[in-house]
Amino acid sequence: MLWSGWGDPARAAELPAPVRDLLTELLGVRAPATPAATFGEVRLPPVALPPPVLAALAAVTGEEHVRADDDARIRHTRGKSTPDLLLMRTGDASDAPDAVVLPGSHEEVAEVLRLCAEHRVAVVPFGGGTSVVGGLTAARRHLHSGGLTGVVALDLGRLDRLRSVDPVSMTAVLEPGLRAPQAERLLAGHGLTLGHFPQSYEYATLGGFAAARSSGQASAGYGRFDDMVVGMTVATPRGTLEIGRAPKSAAGPDLRQVFLGSEGAFGVITSLRLRVHPAPAVRAYEGWRFETFAAGTAALRGLAQEGAPPAALPTVLRLSDETETMVGLAKPTDLGAPGSDSGCLVVAGFEGAPGEVARRREHAAALLLEAGGVHLGPEPGEKWAQGRFSAPYLRDSLLAAGATVETLETACFWADLPRLYDAVRLALHGALRSPSGGGPLVMCHISHVYATGASLYFTVVTAQTGDPLAQWAAAKRAAGEAIVGAGGTISHHHGVGRDHLEAYAAEIGDLGGEILRGIKERLDPAGILNPGVLIPMY
Amino acid sequence: MLWSGWGDPARAAELPAPVRDLLTELLGVRAPATPAATFGEVRLPPVALPPPVLAALAAVTGEEHVRADDDARIRHTRGKSTPDLLLMRTGDASDAPDAVVLPGSHEEVAEVLRLCAEHRVAVVPFGGGTSVVGGLTAARRHLHSGGLTGVVALDLGRLDRLRSVDPVSMTAVLEPGLRAPQAERLLAGHGLTLGHFPQSYEYATLGGFAAARSSGQASAGYGRFDDMVVGMTVATPRGTLEIGRAPKSAAGPDLRQVFLGSEGAFGVITSLRLRVHPAPAVRAYEGWRFETFAAGTAALRGLAQEGAPPAALPTVLRLSDETETMVGLAKPTDLGAPGSDSGCLVVAGFEGAPGEVARRREHAAALLLEAGGVHLGPEPGEKWAQGRFSAPYLRDSLLAAGATVETLETACFWADLPRLYDAVRLALHGALRSPSGGGPLVMCHISHVYATGASLYFTVVTAQTGDPLAQWAAAKRAAGEAIVGAGGTISHHHGVGRDHLEAYAAEIGDLGGEILRGIKERLDPAGILNPGVLIPMY
Repeated sequence: MLWSGWGDPARAAELPAPVRDLLTELLGVRAPATPAATFGEVRLPPVALPPPVLAALAAVTGEEHVRADDDARIRHTRGKSTPDLLLMRTGDASDAPDAVVLPGSHEEVAEVLRLCAEHRVAVVPFGGGTSVVGGLTAARRHLHSGGLTGVVALDLGRLDRLRSVDPVSMTAVLEPGLRAPQAERLLAGHGLTLGHFPQSYEYATLGGFAAARSSGQASAGYGRFDDMVVGMTVATPRGTLEIGRAPKSAAGPDLRQVFLGSEGAFGVITSLRLRVHPAPAVRAYEGWRFETFAAGTAALRGLAQEGAPPAALPTVLRLSDETETMVGLAKPTDLGAPGSDSGCLVVAGFEGAPGEVARRREHAAALLLEAGGVHLGPEPGEKWAQGRFSAPYLRDSLLAAGATVETLETACFWADLPRLYDAVRLALHGALRSPSGGGPLVMCHISHVYATGASLYFTVVTAQTGDPLAQWAAAKRAAGEAIVGAGGTISHHHGVGRDHLEAYAAEIGDLGGEILRGIKERLDPAGILNPGVLIPMY
Repeated sequence: MLWSGWGDPARAAELPAPVRDLLTELLGVRAPATPAATFGEVRLPPVALPPPVLAALAAVTGEEHVRADDDARIRHTRGKSTPDLLLMRTGDASDAPDAVVLPGSHEEVAEVLRLCAEHRVAVVPFGGGTSVVGGLTAARRHLHSGGLTGVVALDLGRLDRLRSVDPVSMTAVLEPGLRAPQAERLLAGHGLTLGHFPQSYEYATLGGFAAARSSGQASAGYGRFDDMVVGMTVATPRGTLEIGRAPKSAAGPDLRQVFLGSEGAFGVITSLRLRVHPAPAVRAYEGWRFETFAAGTAALRGLAQEGAPPAALPTVLRLSDETETMVGLAKPTDLGAPGSDSGCLVVAGFEGAPGEVARRREHAAALLLEAGGVHLGPEPGEKWAQGRFSAPYLRDSLLAAGATVETLETACFWADLPRLYDAVRLALHGALRSPSGGGPLVMCHISHVYATGASLYFTVVTAQTGDPLAQWAAAKRAAGEAIVGAGGTISHHHGVGRDHLEAYAAEIGDLGGEILRGIKERLDPAGILNPGVLIPMY
C-alpha cells in the first residue's frame, strides 16, 4: 500500500485529458504550489515508549514483531481519508504510533493488551489501514490527559488463517487480519464466498469490516458485514469474550452488536465466525436508465419492498443521480468520455445459481419496467463491475492535480431521503463555492437499499484553496450538520472514528454516550484502547 | 386474562377422552390431591409502600391509575409459565407488587421512573403479563439487599395508540401497551400487517415483544420482532433515549440491540417504530411429511440456505419430530385422534401477493420434493393455522388433571442441532422418569429457521409428583445444562427473566455480565428497574 495514497503505486491512474480539461474549466483547478513531500522528507515524532516497555512487548510477540523503525511507523500513521492523505503529502506524520506490534495469536493479543494496560500504553488496532474517518488516530491530547505514556499500532496482519469451515451451518471461522481478497481465495478453495465487496476491498481486513460495520457493494444480496457475523472472539484488557451460540437468540441484548461498530474501543476481535455462501455459478450485471433520481429512487424502493423476504432484490443495486450519471463516475473507465449517458443510471447485478439468477432477474426486470426504467443491457453493469475498485486510485491523481476529492455517506428512511439529498447537496455547494464562481462538483448515488430506507453516497470534487484541509473540514462540518438536521445517521458504512464524533454524540444523545462509557469502563478501565475514537467525551 | 391460567375462561379447553386415557395409561397421571385455590383464597403480602409514595405516584398518573387493590395486585403477579401457574393454583401471591401504576404517556412513564428512583421503589414493566421465564417477578431478596422499599408493576396498557404510519418507508409508530391483535386491527385499517404471531399473540404486547426479543410463527417470512424494530423511544430513570435514524448504520454499536432483549432492566420502551408489510392478499398453508426428523431437518435447512436473500423460504415453516407428529400436537384440534400421522410433519405457510406466493410455493415445493418430502395438501397446514393459539388453554386442563406440561426452547447452528436435540431429550427423560416407569412425553419441533441455524422447541408432559414445582425445577435445570453443554443458547424467543439467569451467566461469561452491569449502572444507578431479572450478579 502506498504510504501517502492508495494501493499499488504501479496501478496509479493517469487523469484522462477530458477530465483535466473539465477540472480546469469547470472547477478552476490549478496545480498546487508545493509538490508532495517525498518519503525521506516525512517528519516523525521521537519514539516515546521507554525501551523496557518495547522489550516487554517483544518478549510476547518475538523481537521481529515489534517495530519502531520509520518505515513501519509511517505506514501505520492515520488512515486513507482525503484529509489523511493531504496531511501526509505535506510530510506530517505527527500522529505516528511509537511502535507497531504484530501479534501472532489470540493469546499474544490478550497478553499485549494486559501489558499495555499495566504500562499505560494506548493501543490502536490496525487491519488494512483504510479508515476514512480518523479511526486509526489516537488523539495525542487523550494520551496526555489519560496519563498514557505512548501509543502502539496493533497490526493484526499475522492473524490471517481460515480456521475452519462448517458446510452444514454454512459458516466459516476466519481471522481478523485477513484482507478480503485473501479471505475470498481461501474460501474459494471450498467453493464458498463471503460476498463482501466494499470500495476498500483490495486492502481492508475482516476485523476492520466487523469493527466498523462495513457494507459492501453486494450487500443487498449477501447482507452487510454485521449481518454475516454470527460469532466472535474478542480480547479485552480484562480478558476474553466468546459470543454467538446461534444465528439469533432471545438471551438478552445481542452482544455481537456491541462489538460490531466498536472500532477497537472495547476490545480486539481475534476471530470471526461468518455466514458464507456457495460461490455463485452465474454473475449477470446490467444497466437501467431512469429519467430522474426521484423515479429511480421509487424503483429501487419497489425492489426492496417486494415480498418478505425480498424476492426481487438483485445482489448489487445502485442508482446514480443525474450529475454522477453525466460525469460517468459509475463507469470510471469511461470517465468524462463524450456521449455519456443522460438520466440516472441503475446498476443491477445478480449472482447465484442459474435458476435463481434467472428467476430473480425476471422478477426485478418486471418491476423496473413498470417503474419506468429503460433496459440498457449488460454493458453499463459490466463496466461498473470492472472499474469498481479503481476510484481510490483516481483520487491520488486528482489530489496531485490540485483538486480535492472526497466521499461521505449517510442512511435514512425512504420518506426522509429526498430532503436529506437536497440538504447535503446544498450544504456542500454552499461551503465549497469559490469566489471565482467555480462551484464544486457534487455527485450522489444510492449505494444500499433496505425495505425501510437506503443509504446516500456523495462524491465531491472541488478546486483546492491554499489550505485544503481547512477547506474540506468546513465542507464536512456543513454536510454533517445537514445530515443530522435532516434525520439521517452520520454514517451508513464508514464509521465514527474521530471525524464524526461530534455529530455522533448529537445522534445518540447523552444517554447513548453513557451506554458506551459504561461498557468502556468495564472492559477497558485504563482507557488504552483506541483513545479518542467512537466514544463521546471519554 | 384468567388470573390463575391462560386467556378467556370461556374458551377453556376440555381434554378429549383419548388424551385423558393416554395421560392415565401412558404417563400414570392421577388427579391432584388438593384442588386449586379459589380467587378468594389467594394470600397476598401487605402493601409495603408508604401512603405518601402512592400519593406521589397518583399525582403523576391520576388517582384511578394507581391501584393497590387485591384484584389488580393478583393479576399482576408473576407471568404465565407452568411454575407460575402451579404456584398461583396453591393460592400463593407472595410475589405480588405493592401497587399497579398505569401511566398514560411517555412523560408520565419518565416521571414515574424519576419518582421511584427518588423513593427507591422497584419498577417491573408489565405488558401482556405473558412471560414464561420469570420476567415479571421482582426478587424480594433484591428489594431488601438493594435497600428498596417496595415494588410497583408499571402496566403499559394505556399506551395503546397507533401514532403514525409512513407508507413510503413502510414503517409505523406504535405504542408498547398495544396487544398484538389490537395492533393488527389498527394496521389493517391501513392495509398493513406486522406479521408477528407468537403463541402468546392474543395477550402479549408490542413492548414485551421488543423487550424480550420475541419471535413469531411467521418469522421466517416477516422476520423476528427484533428485525422489525427500526426505531424506539426509551424512558430511563436518568432520562430519555431516541434511537434509530435509519434501517442500518455504521455509527457505532447498534443501540437498538441493547434495549431489544433488555427485559425492562435498562429502561421502559414507550414507542416503537416498526417495519410493516402490505396485508397479504393470499394465505396458503400446507403440510409435507418426511420419514424422519433428520430428513425433515435437512429439507428445512435447504429452504433456509437457498439463495441470497432466501428465495424459497415460506412465511411459516416448522417441522415436528416423530413424537410430536404422532401425538398430533401440531394439530391441536385433532389431538390424540385415531389415525394420527406417522413420520414427521412439516407445516409450510405462504403469505403475500398472489404472484409472489405462487412463485415461492413452487420453488419451495421443488426443494421439498427433492429432499424426500411427501406433499399432504392444504389440510394439515390449515388445521395447524386454526389451532395455533389454543395450546395454552390445553395446559390449564392438563394441570387440573394432574399433568405438568411445559415448553422450553433453544437455538443453535445447524451442525449442532442433532446433538442438542438428543441431549435435551435425554436430560428431560432422565429427570422426569417416574419410579413406576411412566416416562414423560417429550415432543419437539423446529420452530424457526435461519441460513446458519434453527431453533428447537420442546413440549414436555409428565405426571405430577407431590411437589410438581420441585419436579419441574429439576427437569428445567437438567435441560438447561444440556442446552449450554451442547452449544445452544438458553433461549431463542422466551428470554432470560429470572428462570434462565444461571445458564445465561454461563453463556455470556464474566465479561458479558460486565457489559450489562456497566450499562445498568449508567442508566439505572438506583437499581430500581426489574431487579433480579436478566443481569447476572446484580
